[in-house]
Amino acid sequence: MAITPFEHPFLSGLLGDDEVARQFSIEAEIAALVRFETALAEGEAAEGVIPVAAGRAIADALVAFEPDLPRLAEETARDGVVVPELVRQLRQAVGQPHGAHVHFGATSQDAIDTGLVLRLLPALDILADRIDGLIEALAGLDDRQGKVPVMAHTRMQAAIPVAASRMIESWRDPLVRHRSRLVAIRDQVGVLHFGGAAGTLEKLGDKGAEVAEEVAVWLGLRALSRARHSERDGFAELASFLSLLSGSLGKMGQDIALMAQSEVGQIRLASGGGSSAMPHKVNPVGAEVLVALARFNATLVSGMHQSLVHENERSGAAWTLEWMLLPQMVVATGAALRTAAALLPSIEFVADKGKR
Amino acid sequence: MAITPFEHPFLSGLLGDDEVARQFSIEAEIAALVRFETALAEGEAAEGVIPVAAGRAIADALVAFEPDLPRLAEETARDGVVVPELVRQLRQAVGQPHGAHVHFGATSQDAIDTGLVLRLLPALDILADRIDGLIEALAGLDDRQGKVPVMAHTRMQAAIPVAASRMIESWRDPLVRHRSRLVAIRDQVGVLHFGGAAGTLEKLGDKGAEVAEEVAVWLGLRALSRARHSERDGFAELASFLSLLSGSLGKMGQDIALMAQSEVGQIRLASGGGSSAMPHKVNPVGAEVLVALARFNATLVSGMHQSLVHENERSGAAWTLEWMLLPQMVVATGAALRTAAALLPSIEFVADKGKR
Amino acid sequence: MAITPFEHPFLSGLLGDDEVARQFSIEAEIAALVRFETALAEGEAAEGVIPVAAGRAIADALVAFEPDLPRLAEETARDGVVVPELVRQLRQAVGQPHGAHVHFGATSQDAIDTGLVLRLLPALDILADRIDGLIEALAGLDDRQGKVPVMAHTRMQAAIPVAASRMIESWRDPLVRHRSRLVAIRDQVGVLHFGGAAGTLEKLGDKGAEVAEEVAVWLGLRALSRARHSERDGFAELASFLSLLSGSLGKMGQDIALMAQSEVGQIRLASGGGSSAMPHKVNPVGAEVLVALARFNATLVSGMHQSLVHENERSGAAWTLEWMLLPQMVVATGAALRTAAALLPSIEFVADKGKR
Amino acid sequence: MAITPFEHPFLSGLLGDDEVARQFSIEAEIAALVRFETALAEGEAAEGVIPVAAGRAIADALVAFEPDLPRLAEETARDGVVVPELVRQLRQAVGQPHGAHVHFGATSQDAIDTGLVLRLLPALDILADRIDGLIEALAGLDDRQGKVPVMAHTRMQAAIPVAASRMIESWRDPLVRHRSRLVAIRDQVGVLHFGGAAGTLEKLGDKGAEVAEEVAVWLGLRALSRARHSERDGFAELASFLSLLSGSLGKMGQDIALMAQSEVGQIRLASGGGSSAMPHKVNPVGAEVLVALARFNATLVSGMHQSLVHENERSGAAWTLEWMLLPQMVVATGAALRTAAALLPSIEFVADKGKR
Repeated sequence: MAITPFEHPFLSGLLGDDEVARQFSIEAEIAALVRFETALAEGEAAEGVIPVAAGRAIADALVAFEPDLPRLAEETARDGVVVPELVRQLRQAVGQPHGAHVHFGATSQDAIDTGLVLRLLPALDILADRIDGLIEALAGLDDRQGKVPVMAHTRMQAAIPVAASRMIESWRDPLVRHRSRLVAIRDQVGVLHFGGAAGTLEKLGDKGAEVAEEVAVWLGLRALSRARHSERDGFAELASFLSLLSGSLGKMGQDIALMAQSEVGQIRLASGGGSSAMPHKVNPVGAEVLVALARFNATLVSGMHQSLVHENERSGAAWTLEWMLLPQMVVATGAALRTAAALLPSIEFVADKGKR
Repeated sequence: MAITPFEHPFLSGLLGDDEVARQFSIEAEIAALVRFETALAEGEAAEGVIPVAAGRAIADALVAFEPDLPRLAEETARDGVVVPELVRQLRQAVGQPHGAHVHFGATSQDAIDTGLVLRLLPALDILADRIDGLIEALAGLDDRQGKVPVMAHTRMQAAIPVAASRMIESWRDPLVRHRSRLVAIRDQVGVLHFGGAAGTLEKLGDKGAEVAEEVAVWLGLRALSRARHSERDGFAELASFLSLLSGSLGKMGQDIALMAQSEVGQIRLASGGGSSAMPHKVNPVGAEVLVALARFNATLVSGMHQSLVHENERSGAAWTLEWMLLPQMVVATGAALRTAAALLPSIEFVADKGKR
Repeated sequence: MAITPFEHPFLSGLLGDDEVARQFSIEAEIAALVRFETALAEGEAAEGVIPVAAGRAIADALVAFEPDLPRLAEETARDGVVVPELVRQLRQAVGQPHGAHVHFGATSQDAIDTGLVLRLLPALDILADRIDGLIEALAGLDDRQGKVPVMAHTRMQAAIPVAASRMIESWRDPLVRHRSRLVAIRDQVGVLHFGGAAGTLEKLGDKGAEVAEEVAVWLGLRALSRARHSERDGFAELASFLSLLSGSLGKMGQDIALMAQSEVGQIRLASGGGSSAMPHKVNPVGAEVLVALARFNATLVSGMHQSLVHENERSGAAWTLEWMLLPQMVVATGAALRTAAALLPSIEFVADKGKR
Repeated sequence: MAITPFEHPFLSGLLGDDEVARQFSIEAEIAALVRFETALAEGEAAEGVIPVAAGRAIADALVAFEPDLPRLAEETARDGVVVPELVRQLRQAVGQPHGAHVHFGATSQDAIDTGLVLRLLPALDILADRIDGLIEALAGLDDRQGKVPVMAHTRMQAAIPVAASRMIESWRDPLVRHRSRLVAIRDQVGVLHFGGAAGTLEKLGDKGAEVAEEVAVWLGLRALSRARHSERDGFAELASFLSLLSGSLGKMGQDIALMAQSEVGQIRLASGGGSSAMPHKVNPVGAEVLVALARFNATLVSGMHQSLVHENERSGAAWTLEWMLLPQMVVATGAALRTAAALLPSIEFVADKGKR
């Protein structure tokens, strides 16, 4: 399909990110939902909320679960969320007598939010690795070329000459800060969302906290004392982080495009894009893509903040809006890191000759 | 793939739009690009810019053109735009001696922008038909139920009773205005983008205007005296229109969700979404989806306006940003109209009983 | 005060617009509200809804009305809108026995929305005049310098030489289109908002339409068959227009800043900004301001579209959001036109020397 | 003036915040700039970069500095930034022979950015105090009313009854998290911006780091190893934080407005807004204002992220855009906290009666 560049047959190589996108494949999404339901059953069995045999039967049966996707699509169009029909299919897969224990005490949002978290964490780990790689690549560039004298520019005018280091540092240091922000973000993202119908786990009686703890351990997440169904600051903060990160890379891209202008020529690109009309050109495609991705995320981050105004115990509207924005932002950020990593080895600073 | 809801195996039924999305399929995209290149060859042949035999050969050969998609993806990742490699493949498909005449005098943006226009027009026609349908459906609702007394609400408080007509009219009249806006929007969108390397059609000598006129006729578009490569107000205005339209539908959705609240009960929904935790509920899913789609477009419209700041004769960054936003907005608008059409027959106003 | 640049003691010269801002002074705001209330009384008196003597007394008394601003502020903080207290003060100013007829049958939103329209129209007229002036200035620039050969740039790289005309036209033509859009926008903005408590003018009995017609004539506005209290597409479309206009000017600013770069030197600025650290620099301040204002409006336009999701017959939240955004956008657009008008005479194209 | 509600004679009581706004008064702005220049002179004198007598003379003279505001406005309109003219006035105030040492080695952005920081810190302290107050107020509300049974609502439908505590906690806990985020934000905001013309403090020879350290100590800020002129992640992160905070308050406002609906009646407001047309109404004005302010900040945060794409060593355009957005966001956040604090004491939960 080709509506967005992220899944587009020929644009995804330019603007997408296969590795990060894998976390947003239908397979990963279903697998994460099943992992939640499995862990839930295991945790509830361990705490005696459902029979031990039910827990075991659910865990065994769901290993090989194959969703009926057309049916999921059909029912999601009516329910607004996939979980009711998915749970029906899961129960059917488990069969009698244990199937009825699937999803016990949970609500759709528990599965969807936790399922998202289970995919965000590996995506964040990919971003972390790539940030590390970029920091290192920039250090290497600094080692190789940091002493090249280049003209600094303020307000779009030549200012005074500086060492290329100055510019490289202004690209690298924000990444160092983002890397450190990522640790805190990862920590607050990596929580179990589990509250039941209205956030009180009312069906679990006095076992709510224990079950939550068990499920969290199974999933490698942190248990919370209360579900955050309607408190979306964690996801909005994640979106802000993604946009900060792609924004800093967009700044680097903008600088490279400006320094690589034909008339400025202080950065030479070993490779670039060809033109259908002007074969002589070497276009700074990667640099421009960084700017486009930065502005894309800077646009979408607004909607994630709008979704903070989440009505009551669960908002259909605000929650759905998140689904439309956050995965794209993660992939766009991955694409920006990937693009930056490919771009850096191709740039070479050219000493300023003082002609001006 | 499942990064965005528009192409998602189970969310697209809720938030996507198959009919509109078809204009953004890879097949439609390639076909539109080929249509442009074919019309270009025909027009240039008619004006003697390329040999008549070349025009005929190109038109004949491209009918059955099959792109090498993996190769397109690979080269697009380098060139930032698909056209250089596509033209190479098209030339190869045409073969010697006429292949070299493919794309003569044009630039990538001519093909991409015109190719987009060729798909936007049928998409706008779908939207137009659906707006007409909604206007009619709302008139029907007014006929059937307009006299039902309901409580008006201002600032989230009961105000005074009014006839349901009052509310129905406030949903319908903006659609009437949007329908009329659409005529103007369609007219300004339906133009041929054709300027060559820097907008001057310099390779066509004194035949530029004539060729443009011919190509425009072939494609059913309006020829311009100059290409609008760097003037993006047309696309940003289209985006604004889409967001105005989905915004009005979001207002209708918000009203329906508010009137259908359990405690208000002035709208009864014949059908709605089920809950995984609370089987007794009938969730106003369609109404919420309208709000989510409205806020989605209201978010993305900002990026389309940012892309007005388009550097020089052609900006890689600002142009690429449009690709990331506009198709999604068209599909989201289609989805909003589709959702509204499905929602309306299910609503029934319930006479206010004055209990309060 | 100095929270925003538009009213800032030293930034307003850079980013504000005294002439447009005058429409958003407290004097103009109160005067417009009073004009509405006066016209309402006149219209109601003419139609026999209130006594003729009351109409005359109100019109006479309100000529010299002086608001108690501290009291307005205090009560607005409670009521969320100035009208209840303003009407109290107006009634007091009229005195017995006619004071009670002030604001008869109207609601706060009638006064506020119409009062805004009465100030938007002259503001739009200022914008129209300035657009005309810019179109002319660009035509003059084209006459004087259009033949200068300059290098076209695509994707931030030198492409092929073109005449400066090419660039000038790409700045002027969007303004011609905006000028024509403005006619339509002005027409749809210039309407009377008058609906009473819930949009039905229920207190006017069968005289609603006649009174509306009278009031509209008094105010030079167009009467509508129904109030648009909750249909905000007109204001959101205005906001979109403003952002389209400032966006096109931002594109011109971006081009000028790029062409005036020290190394490019294809535009020379006769005057520019000084630097506190580098006295040799001539900064393209006006050009940068155009970019900043474009991105500002492109940001705010999103919120105006969010406010389309207006709950019920009147939303406190969405309506208030408009107040926070729209006036700023009008002034920013005025500032952009003013800045462009000042910038154009200072630019001189410099013939490309082919060094590259 | 009345362009924005923050400085509006009658809207600022509703939407502004006098205490926070004080940090954005012209007096505070000039004072902060002077503080920077004074500390700079002191630091440079201490390190022998300028004569000790000059440092003392500057410090003495600037205590009583009175700016010529009209002149500042005039020159700012040309220079794009106030500093060149301000420095001229400061030098004149100091007089011969020491005046020339004012601003030595610094650039406009050093003064502007640091001057902003010096006002942001006390503003953040106000926000911190208010968050603490709200957390406490919500704890008090929980104590008093947490046991009241209320109906939970999911997807705009009654779900199951819960204790009011559940809702109160969902308002309070995000504030606890924001309070903790504020510590980190304050730390990263509270840095000295000092880099000279191109970020290298080149005029200070080998004394750059020492002077920076001295100046930072004088100002109670943290010295950095390098200026962050073009690295704007700190300011964009601050904007994100402000929007997260106002967004959480907007969620609380939305909940209160929904619960206080006439038909729902699960929250009773002791006071609210009056209506000019319907005297019987008690409008949830404060609650609506919280929603409006949340959506306002969620809109503006996008522009702060756009400004991350900051060209070269200093961007006129991106930097100016920050000036237009950030102060408004700080004041809007202050207003949201102030509004929430006033709203909370007026709300009373009403036990759900199960009628539905």
